[in-house]
Amino acid sequence: MELNQNIHVAVDAIVFGYTAGKLHVLLIKQKYGLLKNKWALVGGFVKDDESLVDAVHRELYEEAGIRVNYLEQLYTFGDALDRDPRGRVISVAYFALVNSTTLELKADTDAEDAAWFPIDAVPDELAFDHAHILRTAHQRLQSKLTYQPVGFDLLPERFLFSELEHLYTTILGKEIDRRNFRKKMLSFGIVEETNEFGDKKSGRPAKLFTFNKLKYNELVENGFLFEINFA
Amino acid sequence: MELNQNIHVAVDAIVFGYTAGKLHVLLIKQKYGLLKNKWALVGGFVKDDESLVDAVHRELYEEAGIRVNYLEQLYTFGDALDRDPRGRVISVAYFALVNSTTLELKADTDAEDAAWFPIDAVPDELAFDHAHILRTAHQRLQSKLTYQPVGFDLLPERFLFSELEHLYTTILGKEIDRRNFRKKMLSFGIVEETNEFGDKKSGRPAKLFTFNKLKYNELVENGFLFEINFA
Repeated sequence: MELNQNIHVAVDAIVFGYTAGKLHVLLIKQKYGLLKNKWALVGGFVKDDESLVDAVHRELYEEAGIRVNYLEQLYTFGDALDRDPRGRVISVAYFALVNSTTLELKADTDAEDAAWFPIDAVPDELAFDHAHILRTAHQRLQSKLTYQPVGFDLLPERFLFSELEHLYTTILGKEIDRRNFRKKMLSFGIVEETNEFGDKKSGRPAKLFTFNKLKYNELVENGFLFEINFA
Repeated sequence: MELNQNIHVAVDAIVFGYTAGKLHVLLIKQKYGLLKNKWALVGGFVKDDESLVDAVHRELYEEAGIRVNYLEQLYTFGDALDRDPRGRVISVAYFALVNSTTLELKADTDAEDAAWFPIDAVPDELAFDHAHILRTAHQRLQSKLTYQPVGFDLLPERFLFSELEHLYTTILGKEIDRRNFRKKMLSFGIVEETNEFGDKKSGRPAKLFTFNKLKYNELVENGFLFEINFA
């Protein structure tokens, strides 16, 4: 195409995980370029013959050695003309939620290191505008938690009810009425008690629960609205 | 930047208006190129030195002669490699809601014609993947209507309550329980009765209402959640 446009297209991935009762985000240490050794989100330029979402999957594998099941487009950052010191670059950002304890990180070709950081302890100076992108993703996660059952993607397949509660209070940064939360969450019929018991720090052993995704999808098709409010 | 990437960046605008009791969308007729004379969303390539959102404002003015107050980023379409016959182009799509009756359209430099189409009567074959983009925007509007008071942007400053009701039933394509709707909408305290009367087709004259945006913003800051459900 004869078009004198000098704008480049990148993708970035905000991967959230939940370990040891804390929300984490995946960061990589830049190996090359102007921002060498700075921590950044996984990301890179899109190839001419790959879709945006394929580019994200490729970068996640190349830079952190991981594969994720599901990516959701967050936002395209392209209003700040100087967000990349190398030139005009717009970034289409995607986010993913993973049960991070099961993923082994491996900094690969393009990254010096890859690591999980607790969301309240990320390095002060992230590369590019990644601190801004991360804040946007964090807010989206907080708001999605109240109207979609995304929290289950962050938990192992079987979890204690107290872990689910803790996930909500941690990510939303709010105390919840535990009895109401339990009642409401169980009333949907999408969280099921199993016959297995988990380790609890104190008291009698507690039943493990599981999220029934098939049931949830079925309910959604019939107009069900998941909603957890903390007014 | 030394980067061998041949991807171009465009923006598209989905402008919704509401006239004569129907949701409308703004389309322009292509003046140049392969898709000459096809109807399309307003849009075009981003300039190197303009932000994405500035590009949308510029195109809206150049192609349809309008200015809008508020644009919201909808989604970036860049997974289909062949969405533009001219080459690899990703499009960052924005949507706007206007009270269309007050906007005078004027096809300008880049467009052959500009017109409002009722959403259920848009031309069969829109240019590019614009039918797909329009569907995505329409779904977003429907879902936003239930959790943000966006409907008021489509109405004149003063409106009959029956017009607000009609807007909801029309855009959502659902019947509503009129008494409940009125009760709930008024209970928020963001829709106020004025002392003026509007023209009603039959019966006694009806009071005009207005949306108090300041009050709404104040409530939101205090954690208020606007919500209209039609279960």
